Amino acid sequence: MDPKQQRLKYRKNQQSNTTSGLCDNYLQANLITLPKDYAFEFLLFCQRNPQACPIVDVLEEGKTQPAIADADIRTDLPKYRIYRNGKFIKEVLDVVEEWREDFVTFLIGCSFTFEKALIDDGIKLLHQDQNRVVPMFNTNIPCKKAGRFQGNMVVSMRALLKEEIDRAVNITSQFVTSHGGPIHIGNPEQIGIKDIFKPDYGESINFNEGERVPVFWPCGVTPQNICLSAKPEVMISHAPGHMLITDKLEG
Amino acid sequence: MDPKQQRLKYRKNQQSNTTSGLCDNYLQANLITLPKDYAFEFLLFCQRNPQACPIVDVLEEGKTQPAIADADIRTDLPKYRIYRNGKFIKEVLDVVEEWREDFVTFLIGCSFTFEKALIDDGIKLLHQDQNRVVPMFNTNIPCKKAGRFQGNMVVSMRALLKEEIDRAVNITSQFVTSHGGPIHIGNPEQIGIKDIFKPDYGESINFNEGERVPVFWPCGVTPQNICLSAKPEVMISHAPGHMLITDKLEG
Repeated sequence: MDPKQQRLKYRKNQQSNTTSGLCDNYLQANLITLPKDYAFEFLLFCQRNPQACPIVDVLEEGKTQPAIADADIRTDLPKYRIYRNGKFIKEVLDVVEEWREDFVTFLIGCSFTFEKALIDDGIKLLHQDQNRVVPMFNTNIPCKKAGRFQGNMVVSMRALLKEEIDRAVNITSQFVTSHGGPIHIGNPEQIGIKDIFKPDYGESINFNEGERVPVFWPCGVTPQNICLSAKPEVMISHAPGHMLITDKLEG
Repeated sequence: MDPKQQRLKYRKNQQSNTTSGLCDNYLQANLITLPKDYAFEFLLFCQRNPQACPIVDVLEEGKTQPAIADADIRTDLPKYRIYRNGKFIKEVLDVVEEWREDFVTFLIGCSFTFEKALIDDGIKLLHQDQNRVVPMFNTNIPCKKAGRFQGNMVVSMRALLKEEIDRAVNITSQFVTSHGGPIHIGNPEQIGIKDIFKPDYGESINFNEGERVPVFWPCGVTPQNICLSAKPEVMISHAPGHMLITDKLEG
């Protein structure tokens, strides 16, 4: 399916499914929309924390069409979430009613991109095999503060065979707009994770700890969490797993 | 001389000389201070035009101490310029009186850094030999617009021997926070420069056009020009050639 066709289905509310696995080879992006009052500090936060918050596009005040997709970001994602003062309010199929002329939108890279490259290289991803959302964890790794935006990094975990780790590092490091290489390999305790089978987001996966090593990547939940903790009067994001599919080829 | 000692001389107004050639090996930076109202759009402009505007540090609202120097940016540069509504008002030795709590400061890389590397590699820089300020030119190369910030790139020119060009590209490309590699080699007309001996900024240098090729690098005058054309109510910059000497080693 062509990205434009898929986005039109979302625009017309004919579909509202997860974008995971759709339009292979096209970059998908996390969406965060904030009032302009927060835009400088959040852009600076992303600039200071490029691994957790790789910017792929920014839409200035009131703009609804990104440079990397022939899309209207108010309608062309499958599902959105609205937050007020840091609290989740509701999930909606478009944000036309909520739209304000002072909204600034940030599109941030997502790890769907590098997962395909790992699989293409013959690396098995257990969460996909076990049909689960990738497990994600809060850590004790501090992000660099910018204005009102501060907090710790959220990571996603993939349990790899020892002999796969070097290749996985080499492959994912190439994807600078999709979080790049791992931030930690091997010792969950060291980055503040108490139980590797109890993720804070996503779902737990089963693996043999003698056989596989947990590898952690910076995760796109980080900017969402950081934004919410700044308690902006209003914030819009994609619903988890329901990304913007762009017209940009990956890699 | 240690950067801290040199900066203290400026702070006490014991010196107000150009920083060119001082504190070898330490990164020097262009300074641009703007009211917060412009900060998001200007940061986005820099992010979209990293070659012309390589950000080395950003000081949030009201902050006076950068991360990359144990300095007070209101006093520790040799000389400043104040602009109002895009017009030059005056040159001053410090900006303590002018300081406002809503000021955001951008530190941007400068080509002093890579010039030293070129010389260390045996490449002769004519403007230094002829004791002149490097010639700079307006071009027809458009920068990527961001909000109120838009305009063409300003470039600096160094006339090199043919056999030096490859090495100069390889060396300067490494300096990503100092404008990186050349933006154009060889044909001034193609980038909108009519007379290579009549620069728009800096001074003309003499060279034999049969023997040497003009090579052009993105220049730190670009962000200053772009800022002025947005006509902010107030803007502060370093005086040309009178940079912030940071505590960060170059390269």
